[in-house]
Amino acid sequence: MSEFKTLRGMRDFLPEDARTMIYVEDVARKVARLYGYKEIITPVVESYELLAAKAGDEVRSRMFAFRDLGGRHVALRPEFTASVARLVATTLRNEPKPFRLFCMGSAYRYDEPQRGRYREFWQSDYELVGSSRPEADAEIIMLTDSLMQGAGLKKFTMKVGHVGVIRGILTQERIGEKQQSAIMQLMDKKQYDDAFKLVKNARASEKCLTVLRQLVECSSNDISKMLSRMEKLVENYEKSVAAVENLRQILELVSQSGCKIDATVDAGFARGLEYYTGMIFEPYVPHLDIALGGGGRYDRLVELFGGESTPAVGVAHGIDRIALGMQLKKTALKVEKEKTVMVIPIKEELRSEALKISRMLRDAGVLVEVEVMGRKMAKALEDADRRKMDYAIIVGERELKEGTVVIRDLAKRQQNTVKIDKMADEIR
Amino acid sequence: MSEFKTLRGMRDFLPEDARTMIYVEDVARKVARLYGYKEIITPVVESYELLAAKAGDEVRSRMFAFRDLGGRHVALRPEFTASVARLVATTLRNEPKPFRLFCMGSAYRYDEPQRGRYREFWQSDYELVGSSRPEADAEIIMLTDSLMQGAGLKKFTMKVGHVGVIRGILTQERIGEKQQSAIMQLMDKKQYDDAFKLVKNARASEKCLTVLRQLVECSSNDISKMLSRMEKLVENYEKSVAAVENLRQILELVSQSGCKIDATVDAGFARGLEYYTGMIFEPYVPHLDIALGGGGRYDRLVELFGGESTPAVGVAHGIDRIALGMQLKKTALKVEKEKTVMVIPIKEELRSEALKISRMLRDAGVLVEVEVMGRKMAKALEDADRRKMDYAIIVGERELKEGTVVIRDLAKRQQNTVKIDKMADEIR
Repeated sequence: MSEFKTLRGMRDFLPEDARTMIYVEDVARKVARLYGYKEIITPVVESYELLAAKAGDEVRSRMFAFRDLGGRHVALRPEFTASVARLVATTLRNEPKPFRLFCMGSAYRYDEPQRGRYREFWQSDYELVGSSRPEADAEIIMLTDSLMQGAGLKKFTMKVGHVGVIRGILTQERIGEKQQSAIMQLMDKKQYDDAFKLVKNARASEKCLTVLRQLVECSSNDISKMLSRMEKLVENYEKSVAAVENLRQILELVSQSGCKIDATVDAGFARGLEYYTGMIFEPYVPHLDIALGGGGRYDRLVELFGGESTPAVGVAHGIDRIALGMQLKKTALKVEKEKTVMVIPIKEELRSEALKISRMLRDAGVLVEVEVMGRKMAKALEDADRRKMDYAIIVGERELKEGTVVIRDLAKRQQNTVKIDKMADEIR
Repeated sequence: MSEFKTLRGMRDFLPEDARTMIYVEDVARKVARLYGYKEIITPVVESYELLAAKAGDEVRSRMFAFRDLGGRHVALRPEFTASVARLVATTLRNEPKPFRLFCMGSAYRYDEPQRGRYREFWQSDYELVGSSRPEADAEIIMLTDSLMQGAGLKKFTMKVGHVGVIRGILTQERIGEKQQSAIMQLMDKKQYDDAFKLVKNARASEKCLTVLRQLVECSSNDISKMLSRMEKLVENYEKSVAAVENLRQILELVSQSGCKIDATVDAGFARGLEYYTGMIFEPYVPHLDIALGGGGRYDRLVELFGGESTPAVGVAHGIDRIALGMQLKKTALKVEKEKTVMVIPIKEELRSEALKISRMLRDAGVLVEVEVMGRKMAKALEDADRRKMDYAIIVGERELKEGTVVIRDLAKRQQNTVKIDKMADEIR
């Protein structure tokens, strides 16, 4: 029999790692609650056509796609927004706007594995549907801040851009949407020469190329200086000016709300996904060279899926990346260490009594493991000790007759006899 | 553009349904904690060979199997035990026994959809690894009881059996293991004639057929009577007698622990999966004709995956089925209704102040939605009302100058002015 293992790019999380993951999920759920995002669940497997529609070439080519037993062309979701947009376009089409949705779970991309990048990964996804206003964009950035703070990643930075800046130029230069997407994906990968070649081939003006060249060199964390610079560069492109102004408003709202974010505006930034139409951003931490999430505005996706024209803005955070970020920083989880108890019968005949005592303790909220190996007392105590459990409860015949058990404090190596109905009180 | 929808057998959970799912997950996690099961996470996508090994023909034929981009034969997990056994056989091979593992997530089978049966479903899975003793089996049944009680399904019943009873007979009749599996799967589907034909073809004795016929007719919720009857029937089959005795011990331990379960022993019961070697069970509720879970002992799976011989017993509960069971019974979720607040600026210029107020409230743990549509006060209040929010906080210029805001109780239709640093106290 061959040695089985996880597939390349897939992994198991042992208890310690899983605990960090669940901690981040709890933080994400708390943020959803505080901001009014209602949790929903959408399928991992969706129609290929849906997931591929606006995923962008790179994501599309890396999807886990296959035919199901009924011959349908299906795929594992590479992200959540397509599913949420489908829901908004169909089941939720008559829901009064705005509404806020939250979902969380695993997603799949056939990427080359590297630190923080796996083929199965987890995201917490927030979508604010129905508002085209900058305060909606600001909220999505603010909740990302709340999540990072909650995870103890206080020194995160944010890369921010606006796809409208470059699209505004390309549109005014009469370059088609598909071509625009190709150009922006190249720019995003910093393959500027290839990008500019496409622009040139599309017969854009010389002026346009000059502006683009200067734009992609722009990146600064002095936001207002950066925005003024961008505004100046694109002054002849009306839609691009509006995009810069929109970005300024969003970032001002965030900062005026008291949310201090170390943001860098990057004019050539595009993200991988094609569906964005406005502000886009990605959070980072200094000690990991991979984005911890990504989000932005997508005002045309719902419409594309057959719904009404619906402005929307959202973000997905990489739960496993945030967990990794916490672990690399050795962030202590804010969880109370709960007392653990092992219940041990002194002989086999008393094992049902041990089960009974365990039940009573659990009903009182105590964490109990019961001896299930039929070991002698000394062996069982040794095991409880090795595993750093707090107490052993020893179930003996004589004590039972008196309605008592022996509680042993494993750290202090002390024991005393207590009434069964007082057991739980001793363990706090 | 076509109308997109979920694939057949897949579904979205809108907030109300998702809430019940998450409630059940919380109960499952609490049970894991109280019983000492450590949570782990394993991949949804695993090698086909691993998942197919002992899944049984029916599950195997309904797996979502495909080739990944690297040409690997992979599948979506149809259940959790194979992945956990893999982990026990590899990464955890040197971990001192016993240990208890818990995992939770989605699984996939290409079944014909019906009420409670979908192609994507969720399970909470508990595995107790390293003990061959009946108290381990008893614990798995007890924790299933705890989960059902926690979900408010107090009137659940349990179908119980032991694959050792029939396997003991077939083994003594020198019928090979593969053939045994085929026979047992037919019996499980109540296709007795086909099953007995296989037994006859395998040249079993006449006596054996008589015993089997009588056994499969046995099913009763008078447990001790039923077990005595079975013991009598199989008296000439040593291993079967031991199996009945084992089942008796397990059920006695459960009942002596004080755990009252309405169990029915079914001698012909086999469950779909091939890896079981001992006690097996499924919980049911009267108002749903589908099992809410299933579990049992599997002492040879870890070995099959290349690990040491390791006894183990486990159970998986259908989270979405339990949620459905709760909803059909209209079980009220024991969750506190939290107060919700909408923050509304009286004019656009104050929206950053509204965001600031929202942040402060959230920092104090209050659930806040902020107005992001730029609506007039009356409209926004109407929306908050319609959505049954509890309070509106109105951010006005005059009040801000005095360090105050207006809090409106939407149910009572009363409002008063409060200091900003006292806002959160008003909302409880």
